[in-house]
Amino acid sequence: MVKFTTTAHAPETARRNGIVQAGSRIVPEEVPVAFSYGGSTHAVMMATPDDLEDFAVGFSLTEGIIASRAEISAIEVVEGEQGIDLQVSLVDDVADRLRARRRSMAGPVGCGLCGVESIEQAVRPVPDVSASPLSLSHSDIVRAVSLLNEAQPLHRETRAVHGAGFYLPGRGLLAVREDVGRHNALDKLCGAVIRAGEGGGNGAVVVTSRLSVEMVQKAAILGSPVLIAISAPTALAIRTAEEAGMTLIALVRGEDFEIFTHPHRISPGSIADVA
Amino acid sequence: MVKFTTTAHAPETARRNGIVQAGSRIVPEEVPVAFSYGGSTHAVMMATPDDLEDFAVGFSLTEGIIASRAEISAIEVVEGEQGIDLQVSLVDDVADRLRARRRSMAGPVGCGLCGVESIEQAVRPVPDVSASPLSLSHSDIVRAVSLLNEAQPLHRETRAVHGAGFYLPGRGLLAVREDVGRHNALDKLCGAVIRAGEGGGNGAVVVTSRLSVEMVQKAAILGSPVLIAISAPTALAIRTAEEAGMTLIALVRGEDFEIFTHPHRISPGSIADVA
Repeated sequence: MVKFTTTAHAPETARRNGIVQAGSRIVPEEVPVAFSYGGSTHAVMMATPDDLEDFAVGFSLTEGIIASRAEISAIEVVEGEQGIDLQVSLVDDVADRLRARRRSMAGPVGCGLCGVESIEQAVRPVPDVSASPLSLSHSDIVRAVSLLNEAQPLHRETRAVHGAGFYLPGRGLLAVREDVGRHNALDKLCGAVIRAGEGGGNGAVVVTSRLSVEMVQKAAILGSPVLIAISAPTALAIRTAEEAGMTLIALVRGEDFEIFTHPHRISPGSIADVA
Repeated sequence: MVKFTTTAHAPETARRNGIVQAGSRIVPEEVPVAFSYGGSTHAVMMATPDDLEDFAVGFSLTEGIIASRAEISAIEVVEGEQGIDLQVSLVDDVADRLRARRRSMAGPVGCGLCGVESIEQAVRPVPDVSASPLSLSHSDIVRAVSLLNEAQPLHRETRAVHGAGFYLPGRGLLAVREDVGRHNALDKLCGAVIRAGEGGGNGAVVVTSRLSVEMVQKAAILGSPVLIAISAPTALAIRTAEEAGMTLIALVRGEDFEIFTHPHRISPGSIADVA
């Protein structure tokens, strides 16, 4: 039984060009999705109820619960009345590690840590991705965003969701994932990439949204050394990318874009190649 | 000492109209802000480090920790190396209530609840706001959004933050708050409204962002019966507004907009009044 749908038809009263009339609009659904490990819930996200196995794998990776796909032994998608519970089974030593981590630190919500310790968790150090030899041309950047814009069926239908893609030079987009939440779209993408057996260091992450520090953290944990965004970055996202050795490119509009960190990975090339 | 700034100048390499050159862009800062009650941290948000007292009051309200401004006895803003700790002191019985709530339920992160219970917390019932007699004309809707667009200095500088305003018919915007996070902008606004002693039922909440269910929950807790957004709603946001008796208006572009729930509060009037 698939109870939760990706979109819904919402009746509405619309005013357009001065005329008021009844109609309807296709809007994205938003469903509580819980991540449970060993019968204990780790977090609940409001998400688009698609690509749930990718979401389970990607969230487990970017939250630091697993280091590789092989550390998950099973994923069960349990649909309840009001939401979906993703019950993730971990291999024994990883499950033990999570239990130990939980005992020492219950997480930022109601955790009893002092503010300073909780803040340090929020800005945790990110992996260094500078070892990846990936380089891109200007036309790769334009092409990656152009391909992402074309590969978002849910956004085309609703104009109201975020997309994240993984771009391999010379090959195009390995995967695209969409979600009402930009963090979720990126977590789903990370899951799709490692489930496909692709190395995160081989490609660039491309997102439709703004770049907050969490987007940089997730891309770095995947191992990708290039993060491309259609919208703008925050100052903390830029500093974090700088420290991680990650090339951060943002505000890509047509053939215009801005490179904020580690521009050595980007060669001018010829935009004419894009056609 | 104010250590954290609202924006930063980021050096960049920009490609514009085929020309590559070095420059810089003003980007919004993003700072971990912890909310601590009785020395114990409740949550950490990545936020714009402005209007922190509003943020403390608004977050405490929309998280259900306080029911009114008077339940907070003091707010201390403590700046640390990596973030800001908002240390909120509650009046005695409210502090006791929070401690009891924590004992029974540690919150969704690492909480040990089963997925179903955690999901039920995420979609908690919202207050009914249908008792408010507030009504708006079409020109109020257009005017509220137009005023909000004009009252966002941080967005004008960075093009990268969200805004939330509180619109009183016949009076204009009581307050506008901006933040890198749309939930934070709304929490800050809720704090500003109750700190000003204004009743949430007297005005409409206006936001620049999309409408997820959490935006509806926060506006309902403030008591506002009308929520206006420039972007699109999710299906769950619409259902939640329907249940709460809240009029939800979205996709406001110039003089066009769409009313999704409880249209009885909206009278056509004349858009010509807007000028």
